[in-house]
Amino acid sequence: MDMNDRALRDITVALGGTANGYPRQDGFDIVVASEVMAIFCLSTSLEDLKKRLGSIVCAYTREGKPVRARDLSVHGAMTVLLKDALNPNLVQTLENNPAFIHGGPFANIAHGCNSVIATQAALKLVDYVVTEAGFGADLGAEKFIDIKCRKSGLRPDAVVIVATIRALKYHGGVDLKEVNKENLAALEKGIANLERHVNNVRNHYGLPCVVSINRFTHDTQAEIDLLKRKLAHHEAPVILATHWGDGGKGAVEVARTVVELIDKTPANFKYVYDEKQPLWDKIKTIATKIYGAAEVTADTKVRNQIKKLQDDGYGHYPVCVAKTQYSFSTDAQSRAAPSGHVVNVREVRLAAGAEFVVMICGDVMTMPGLPKVPSANKIDLVDGKVVGLF
Amino acid sequence: MDMNDRALRDITVALGGTANGYPRQDGFDIVVASEVMAIFCLSTSLEDLKKRLGSIVCAYTREGKPVRARDLSVHGAMTVLLKDALNPNLVQTLENNPAFIHGGPFANIAHGCNSVIATQAALKLVDYVVTEAGFGADLGAEKFIDIKCRKSGLRPDAVVIVATIRALKYHGGVDLKEVNKENLAALEKGIANLERHVNNVRNHYGLPCVVSINRFTHDTQAEIDLLKRKLAHHEAPVILATHWGDGGKGAVEVARTVVELIDKTPANFKYVYDEKQPLWDKIKTIATKIYGAAEVTADTKVRNQIKKLQDDGYGHYPVCVAKTQYSFSTDAQSRAAPSGHVVNVREVRLAAGAEFVVMICGDVMTMPGLPKVPSANKIDLVDGKVVGLF
Amino acid sequence: MDMNDRALRDITVALGGTANGYPRQDGFDIVVASEVMAIFCLSTSLEDLKKRLGSIVCAYTREGKPVRARDLSVHGAMTVLLKDALNPNLVQTLENNPAFIHGGPFANIAHGCNSVIATQAALKLVDYVVTEAGFGADLGAEKFIDIKCRKSGLRPDAVVIVATIRALKYHGGVDLKEVNKENLAALEKGIANLERHVNNVRNHYGLPCVVSINRFTHDTQAEIDLLKRKLAHHEAPVILATHWGDGGKGAVEVARTVVELIDKTPANFKYVYDEKQPLWDKIKTIATKIYGAAEVTADTKVRNQIKKLQDDGYGHYPVCVAKTQYSFSTDAQSRAAPSGHVVNVREVRLAAGAEFVVMICGDVMTMPGLPKVPSANKIDLVDGKVVGLF
Amino acid sequence: MDMNDRALRDITVALGGTANGYPRQDGFDIVVASEVMAIFCLSTSLEDLKKRLGSIVCAYTREGKPVRARDLSVHGAMTVLLKDALNPNLVQTLENNPAFIHGGPFANIAHGCNSVIATQAALKLVDYVVTEAGFGADLGAEKFIDIKCRKSGLRPDAVVIVATIRALKYHGGVDLKEVNKENLAALEKGIANLERHVNNVRNHYGLPCVVSINRFTHDTQAEIDLLKRKLAHHEAPVILATHWGDGGKGAVEVARTVVELIDKTPANFKYVYDEKQPLWDKIKTIATKIYGAAEVTADTKVRNQIKKLQDDGYGHYPVCVAKTQYSFSTDAQSRAAPSGHVVNVREVRLAAGAEFVVMICGDVMTMPGLPKVPSANKIDLVDGKVVGLF
Repeated sequence: MDMNDRALRDITVALGGTANGYPRQDGFDIVVASEVMAIFCLSTSLEDLKKRLGSIVCAYTREGKPVRARDLSVHGAMTVLLKDALNPNLVQTLENNPAFIHGGPFANIAHGCNSVIATQAALKLVDYVVTEAGFGADLGAEKFIDIKCRKSGLRPDAVVIVATIRALKYHGGVDLKEVNKENLAALEKGIANLERHVNNVRNHYGLPCVVSINRFTHDTQAEIDLLKRKLAHHEAPVILATHWGDGGKGAVEVARTVVELIDKTPANFKYVYDEKQPLWDKIKTIATKIYGAAEVTADTKVRNQIKKLQDDGYGHYPVCVAKTQYSFSTDAQSRAAPSGHVVNVREVRLAAGAEFVVMICGDVMTMPGLPKVPSANKIDLVDGKVVGLF
Repeated sequence: MDMNDRALRDITVALGGTANGYPRQDGFDIVVASEVMAIFCLSTSLEDLKKRLGSIVCAYTREGKPVRARDLSVHGAMTVLLKDALNPNLVQTLENNPAFIHGGPFANIAHGCNSVIATQAALKLVDYVVTEAGFGADLGAEKFIDIKCRKSGLRPDAVVIVATIRALKYHGGVDLKEVNKENLAALEKGIANLERHVNNVRNHYGLPCVVSINRFTHDTQAEIDLLKRKLAHHEAPVILATHWGDGGKGAVEVARTVVELIDKTPANFKYVYDEKQPLWDKIKTIATKIYGAAEVTADTKVRNQIKKLQDDGYGHYPVCVAKTQYSFSTDAQSRAAPSGHVVNVREVRLAAGAEFVVMICGDVMTMPGLPKVPSANKIDLVDGKVVGLF
Repeated sequence: MDMNDRALRDITVALGGTANGYPRQDGFDIVVASEVMAIFCLSTSLEDLKKRLGSIVCAYTREGKPVRARDLSVHGAMTVLLKDALNPNLVQTLENNPAFIHGGPFANIAHGCNSVIATQAALKLVDYVVTEAGFGADLGAEKFIDIKCRKSGLRPDAVVIVATIRALKYHGGVDLKEVNKENLAALEKGIANLERHVNNVRNHYGLPCVVSINRFTHDTQAEIDLLKRKLAHHEAPVILATHWGDGGKGAVEVARTVVELIDKTPANFKYVYDEKQPLWDKIKTIATKIYGAAEVTADTKVRNQIKKLQDDGYGHYPVCVAKTQYSFSTDAQSRAAPSGHVVNVREVRLAAGAEFVVMICGDVMTMPGLPKVPSANKIDLVDGKVVGLF
Repeated sequence: MDMNDRALRDITVALGGTANGYPRQDGFDIVVASEVMAIFCLSTSLEDLKKRLGSIVCAYTREGKPVRARDLSVHGAMTVLLKDALNPNLVQTLENNPAFIHGGPFANIAHGCNSVIATQAALKLVDYVVTEAGFGADLGAEKFIDIKCRKSGLRPDAVVIVATIRALKYHGGVDLKEVNKENLAALEKGIANLERHVNNVRNHYGLPCVVSINRFTHDTQAEIDLLKRKLAHHEAPVILATHWGDGGKGAVEVARTVVELIDKTPANFKYVYDEKQPLWDKIKTIATKIYGAAEVTADTKVRNQIKKLQDDGYGHYPVCVAKTQYSFSTDAQSRAAPSGHVVNVREVRLAAGAEFVVMICGDVMTMPGLPKVPSANKIDLVDGKVVGLF
């Protein structure tokens, strides 16, 4: 069940007497932030799904031994519930292009991209498959590569980095309300953010890349020229895309460029870290290589948890970092391309079914807020027709 | 959502800080025990459904003023969710007879029979429509008549009272483990229970009735003879039915008898109480006429609540009694046809959308227990097939 | 600790992780309503105190076996805490008469009079000892006799029933705001309340009695005459007392009358019920004899609890009734001397250390409300002096 | 009230209906960890106490405005409760030396030393007053100087650093079970811890200091020699003390040395930071100067809280660091004299009455655990005598 009422995030249950069970603190997670969604997207078959669901650690005994879904004999029933959902559902765009929309794990608390099964099915049907990886390329792309590709054997040929001139001006220090005004100085500063992403993709993921600029009507020619000039030395073609207004036609140049790039530039695909590295080294490698951090810190309690996971045999799992999508650092206010910062691991969670270790760094919202005015207030039935859905 | 985990019956929500709302005690009800189910079954159209959903009292202000779903503007969205469900769904029996299974409110906390819309649709399609009214005829039948029929204008022509010789022996004092043994003395005592039901139907609901005995292989001829002899003076034919073994054929005689009865015995249909009676008089009337009670009692607090409902304009609502189905009294251990007992009203709830007042008398379980071993433990996917559902 | 913050009456504790223990629902009781206070007042020695404290049932195991303070080995430490408190403290009145103020159990949830030790000490020191028994003579006096006297072997010689003409007019139907106005008709009706008390004392407790009228300046001579006339046939002298204004002198006549009465009228002291009667019969006897009720009822659940207590060997314990002090019935609105009413037992609690069974009948407030404006708001330190205590 | 049941640390209160108030999450703190204890120890008069109690921030309005004890008009009553406690209580040692034991705030969550009033009273009575400052000299001494002295104008003349050879061996890497064995290599390493404390006291607090070694029978002469030799260049005499066995006589040499030191070495007393520095700079100064840290970090949320406190006018308050007493760092496992570590501020709390800002760094236990077997189990009354208190 998807239960997104924030009043249910932090609750005490089983009150009212022994017939209702043992009181405990509990909470509902939204589906997209749950380990079940991550498992669903990483599973390669029904058998694999069942095995992974069975491995979920639901609780620990007083002695600290994990209690798994398998120990409770509920993984079979869970698999039955997801049986039909595991078949990828083919939809079409407004221009009738085929698309799979199948699975949606968050890119903070989970790995942020669609199901392995859908990608594998797509690869059998067409020549080029594009996967959207959520949030910044330091989050979605890193997890796509280090978690999804590593686990499934997928090997991408190229990356498209999507950016906007507005966002780069914001990274250059402009207030959100002013991003529609030309500001070459701010843009120049903010481009450092894009350059770090390009550098990460080319050098740390070892992939050729195209920068696709979502063109806004407010973007000026001077800004576009500046952006192209600044990125010229990166061997990453910068293309303007207008598909938001022109449909598929507006993205033709991006598509052509990607195809050419794949043909002529061999990928040198690599993971950010080796799966044999200890967990602590993995987060350190991600933080220093990809985020530009100087150091990773953690309280004794968290360090001990990481050590225990390492000792308990989970050391070969990838690390799934949950951090803000607004900055390379864990401070949402720190824009452009910060260096030398410290990444503090606040909390560690084992996702034994998804087979990764989540490390929560800084403040991360794991259940998004609902709108001030509930959508339900607008939804109604008028003359037998549903209104107010949009 | 149907949420039958008993750990969720009595919970404290919105803990964890102001972003999660104001802490409060709350709980999940199962769908069949909710006012929404009662409303759904009493609604005559989508407009009526929306109006009733809007009238649900969700809370009271500090000043004691009701806060309705309408005040929160959510009744439109609720109606949208139920829009398709309101169309009665036609299914068929194993012998291909048509049947509507549409809505299922509990017969303790709610009124216990299927939707008005399904019954009305059925009446347009066939000559004879049978409604199953849950629990004893003191609960399901009384509510069918005083709530469903009164509200919708339906007028039944006859009643079939279903009984078993085993249950009558139990009412005569026999232990549950001994009900399969012939016991004429106990049966004779227990028949008082059936006679009270027959009397209620004939004299208080004003309807001709047939007693249909679900025949068990353990029933002896002596027992059957005794039962028939004892009921002979009631003008209520006693028929043995074996449809559990013989299918529709086994109920042919019951059906024929009902048809004959309707043809020759004019119904003198009446409600147990007048809707103009005050709430307190209504429960008193039900308790004394139907249950054989001497008196109705209530704590000052409950009496004041009833008085307040009366003063607030809900006095014309029917009363929906929630009591044990095991006895005419509120004491589940009191068998056969107890008289002179006291019915204590423990709690009162306004169902402003369903348009009745629930009076909880004695101990009633409003969320049934789950099995000791969860069904999930048996459900599994084996070779792509779901197993363990039964 | 005496903890009278109502926010602490109903709480959930041990949240925040396993280091804080197992979550459970709990609550603070005020000291005067606790079993510890009842035990303290019924104990005859330190040894007896320790034995009783050790017998308190703190919890039940999942199998339903009682867990006593003794099983937790805490009764020794509890006794140490109460060691000095058990010595009765002698204080003096404004006129320098000696008085023991020692222990104060509520007269609803507990037995309502001071410690056995203080009464026994007083009896060794003076000729006449007066015990104040709280609430109406149906509560405080009944418990003084059936619990305190029975347990300790104390045998009273006479009773003083204290009444006011204002209260009797209230019992006659007058609104609280009008009780200061002469109203002979209402007084005549209300005297039925006083007569029932006199009758209970004389016939059911077997004790001679004096009625002491707390004289108010608003009382008229006609009212006083009426009261005396109506009570004339009861052999219970009616005396006006003005000690509220005149000090000890104002009560001299009451005192003289009591002394005379004791000298000339032999007490025929008896308990309301025999301790060998089953628990159910005890409450029935109290309700019918003392309260004028027709019947005692209880839900199946409560009846089963009473039955279990009887089966578990607590059948010989006295019954301590918790009910409203405003009426002989359980309905606070029912004035004068109601008859034929029903007493519903809502809840049963074993006080295994105090050695009685509490039966809660109707609504009873077990933690009184605090004032709207906290007293703390007025208390202050001004020039080194505490102000605002009164 | 001092309430040290850990089940009460994290609770939900005011459940059970509107009469009990608004549900909220709450908890009990132990007295020594409460702001009231800190206030009590920093107050210079009853007037000052009342003013500070009134300044406690109890809650924040939905708009984020502080609600103070003064706004609730309870500070007068709170002062009345503490009125007599504020008079310092003079006790005597086993050798009849006078001592004030007055107030005891924890040295992690509060400032860790006795009341200003007691110290000031002592200074009027004798020539030399010794204050015990809890935990390591990085915690107790730093707070004594930066909080207690700064606030009260007290100016110490010298410091006695108390150490044991066992503890230094532990800091040198020896397991707790092995500290009684001679281990010169470990001792040499562990002495770095003591040297940092000496250096902090002499150079950062600007005070002459004596090192008093609590001599254990296991200490070997070789160890003592090594310690003296290593500290020789610090101008901090190292004296062996045996008062644990010899009483006052065993500490005579320490006392004499302190007196001499005060006479001949002028103190150059200084605070670690200036009160005009912003809060963030203060914690940075403490962490780098005293703890040897390279950097201070904090999540965005914590940084924003610090910024808000600075903006709200609390920037001139001292900072009270709550961190482990086992290490100069926030990692209890990091022994000796770690350098270059990172101090992460996990939480910030305003103590507006105590007039400091608590910064919780790393894991700190704010309510100590209770023993596995409760002391209550041993306490008892035997023949009228209390036993089991020790």
